[in-house]
Amino acid sequence: MAHDEFAIIDQYFADIGDSADSVLLGVGDDAAVVNVAPGHQLIISMDTLVEGVHFPVDTDPADIAYKSVAVNLSDLAAMAADPAWFLLSLTLPKSDPQWLSQFATGLRQIANDFNLSLIGGDTCRGALSITIQIAGLVPVGQFVTRQRARPGDLILVSGELGNAGLGLALKQGQVDLPQDLHRRCLMALNRPQPRLELVPFLRAFASAAIDISDGLQGDLAHVLKASHCGARILRDSIPVNAWIAQQQAYQYALGAGDDYEICCCVPARHQPEISAWNKAHPECRLAAIGEITESGYFLRDGESLIDLDNAQGYRHFD
Amino acid sequence: MAHDEFAIIDQYFADIGDSADSVLLGVGDDAAVVNVAPGHQLIISMDTLVEGVHFPVDTDPADIAYKSVAVNLSDLAAMAADPAWFLLSLTLPKSDPQWLSQFATGLRQIANDFNLSLIGGDTCRGALSITIQIAGLVPVGQFVTRQRARPGDLILVSGELGNAGLGLALKQGQVDLPQDLHRRCLMALNRPQPRLELVPFLRAFASAAIDISDGLQGDLAHVLKASHCGARILRDSIPVNAWIAQQQAYQYALGAGDDYEICCCVPARHQPEISAWNKAHPECRLAAIGEITESGYFLRDGESLIDLDNAQGYRHFD
Repeated sequence: MAHDEFAIIDQYFADIGDSADSVLLGVGDDAAVVNVAPGHQLIISMDTLVEGVHFPVDTDPADIAYKSVAVNLSDLAAMAADPAWFLLSLTLPKSDPQWLSQFATGLRQIANDFNLSLIGGDTCRGALSITIQIAGLVPVGQFVTRQRARPGDLILVSGELGNAGLGLALKQGQVDLPQDLHRRCLMALNRPQPRLELVPFLRAFASAAIDISDGLQGDLAHVLKASHCGARILRDSIPVNAWIAQQQAYQYALGAGDDYEICCCVPARHQPEISAWNKAHPECRLAAIGEITESGYFLRDGESLIDLDNAQGYRHFD
Repeated sequence: MAHDEFAIIDQYFADIGDSADSVLLGVGDDAAVVNVAPGHQLIISMDTLVEGVHFPVDTDPADIAYKSVAVNLSDLAAMAADPAWFLLSLTLPKSDPQWLSQFATGLRQIANDFNLSLIGGDTCRGALSITIQIAGLVPVGQFVTRQRARPGDLILVSGELGNAGLGLALKQGQVDLPQDLHRRCLMALNRPQPRLELVPFLRAFASAAIDISDGLQGDLAHVLKASHCGARILRDSIPVNAWIAQQQAYQYALGAGDDYEICCCVPARHQPEISAWNKAHPECRLAAIGEITESGYFLRDGESLIDLDNAQGYRHFD
């Protein structure tokens, strides 16, 4: 695709996103050139989405583009960074103008939604996959990692968990959902909304944060490992939609991936700030689902206390 | 590969390259955190290599790793940047410990050769492909683009062109090469050496530069387009090995890709500095192959003047 490559980049990807003042040279040379604002650190992430693994074969190209960037933005949100720019490496089986045009539309939507410039990349021929590398900025020292959760911290989760997993199950004909949940679950699957609105809250109050890409159970485990702590969480406090609660189908919230909500830890003394956040941001409510402990990883489920370090019960989706 | 992913990263990729002082957080969180030295700009590039497209199916995993990083380093060299860090996204059909271990060996070699840290990335399941995103640094304003070549500039090329294309032809049984060229051509194919030693020269003297990844003819055309100029080049001045010169097989130098030498333009008044460079760096000699003109793109080949904007003769490898 050597010759096509230049045509594809010029035609579809040369003008995506505002070319911010910090971008001196974008798509079209051997590399891009950017300025990093003084007093800031750069937050860098890269994720690949492969057809048939990260999205079903018949997914709308605009949704693929949107989601590819969204999952990377979600990593920036979890680190408390403001988005700056991204690069795209697109591998596709053939040069299909309609597909490319739809893909570019989705890319342009999310670049505009989150004020992000596409500054470079690459196209090549092969099985469909999309790699996005993204960079964000934080004022020096204000990034948030997985490493500093402490016993006594509250464990908070944004939004509703399990909707994306339920969307996939719906698409695959595995569940019979009430009609009013169809759109919400399919949107969660195809157009995840990275929680960048949480960035100022995380910088100010969070001891640790992670985005929920592989399911709450596994992702919180990463925080516990990195922070050398344990946790106790309460199943009925996990924010889920009414169907999951009624059906007791909490495996979607605990084990299914793709939610891209934020799980963060906040010292309990900041309870007033959490309440204030929730009052001001009903669309991005933070639910307290448990607390950090010295060790062990347990889920309170009615009368039972399930050891999540060993539990098989919530591993349906691994 | 969700669970494997963490094991793979921890086991094979957690300690590649020096963790430079500028890297505050590397592999293992949602994103990496880096400091950018004051007074510097960031140069960013990303390239994907796909099995069967960019390297033959039976390529040694260590060579695949080495080359994946080398082609990105070559982009930094062309921009006159010093390498800083890189990310890896590795898509592979199955988790094969022997393959991964060899791949990690190649990655470690090039990271050490060029003083580069692996700061993050991603592994996933799918057809074998490798995406590398690389970043380098230049003092503010000292980067070199394709855009500022001017009529009268000398066109220079480093090293020997065509060896990588010849290595591929040799591997595919398409040419009968003298034994003493086998190793040189296969090394050029599998272990290209990015020309980072040219960075200080390019910063000081080059008006434009590009790395030769798709063949001299096409890559120089990108410079001419970006700089709104023409060029006249002399076939017999193109630096090639003795076999190409004897066989008049200049299509390998003009049309085959993968050389990763540097083509740069330098105002003619810097002829003394070019001579001084060549005396001091016989391993990275810069050959003058022609000059930038107002318009047109011509190759002097003995008595003929070939119009490269229209020529079919040197397009064997497109």
